Amino acid sequence: MNPEEDMSDHPTKGNIKFVTSNEHKFLELQEIFRNSGINLEWIRRKYEEIQGEGTEEISLDSARKITHEINGRFFLEDTGLYIDALNGFPGPYSSYVAGTIGNTGILKLIQGLDRSCRFLTVITYFDGHEFFQFDGMLRGSISKEIRGKGGFGYDPIFIPDGQSITLAEMDIETKSSISHRSLAAQRFISHLMGSR
Amino acid sequence: MNPEEDMSDHPTKGNIKFVTSNEHKFLELQEIFRNSGINLEWIRRKYEEIQGEGTEEISLDSARKITHEINGRFFLEDTGLYIDALNGFPGPYSSYVAGTIGNTGILKLIQGLDRSCRFLTVITYFDGHEFFQFDGMLRGSISKEIRGKGGFGYDPIFIPDGQSITLAEMDIETKSSISHRSLAAQRFISHLMGSR
Repeated sequence: MNPEEDMSDHPTKGNIKFVTSNEHKFLELQEIFRNSGINLEWIRRKYEEIQGEGTEEISLDSARKITHEINGRFFLEDTGLYIDALNGFPGPYSSYVAGTIGNTGILKLIQGLDRSCRFLTVITYFDGHEFFQFDGMLRGSISKEIRGKGGFGYDPIFIPDGQSITLAEMDIETKSSISHRSLAAQRFISHLMGSR
Repeated sequence: MNPEEDMSDHPTKGNIKFVTSNEHKFLELQEIFRNSGINLEWIRRKYEEIQGEGTEEISLDSARKITHEINGRFFLEDTGLYIDALNGFPGPYSSYVAGTIGNTGILKLIQGLDRSCRFLTVITYFDGHEFFQFDGMLRGSISKEIRGKGGFGYDPIFIPDGQSITLAEMDIETKSSISHRSLAAQRFISHLMGSR
């Protein structure tokens, strides 16, 4: 099947482009989509993001700006960690914060504070005509120390509610059965199935 | 004199518009410019900023996007605190970080680390034809505790090199004689004088 063919009558068949510079994200979502018979194509590139408080708005703005640069249907994914006692920090700047103060910095900041937090993933999909957004949330708490070798980013300090281990201590199947990213992806996949 | 008149032959006369939503910044720069006989007009509004590591690039991008919305010559000002031991954090996200974890958060993060840091101000000026940028840097260290009532933002935790008090403990004249913002402004004013 020619992946450049118009897929509008076959929404779950053929390639969907995932635009991200983050290999971890691509591998995680590739696995989830493969189970639904959808092949992801990795467009490995960065894109412009505006500063702002709303992940949905930031992601939609980014997607709009690259529609003319990507041939065919594509999506973006943005995930943030929001810590209640820190007014939502690091939120939309989770990637920058991970690369500067990192998990060690988050553990220092949370000392003596309530450790409640949530992960929020927003997927913005452009089907060639319209934009759609899907989100997934996972509530949890910041661990006392860095634990586990799996996952990436803040996974080693995030304990999902109802669990006793961090996301980085779980095998990938367990993580994917509960994660924010997986939940957003499942909503996206349901949309693709429903629009068949 | 009509402030809407073409000022290209009188670069230090008439109004220059300062686009900022931050009243503290306007008042500080208004004072500095007044001493040079230049009247600042406050355009109180927010503007879009992209995410990125380079303050110059972010500021120039913002200025380009609003040239068609501002009548006449204008400038933007962006200031960041860069902490060496935290890989430059909070850097371009200084405003967001101040509004979430604040000075208390910075003091927690710096515990046990080298406290060296710098303030960097970038001014981007559009004269109606071209863009110009002027910067000002102030090196210092993060104080052990929050001290002083003056200034704003990170001033109460910033001790300039060679000083024993924070920027927030100084009177405004002393602060303006050494500050990053003042230095960038002086370079800007010299440019205006030189282009007369």
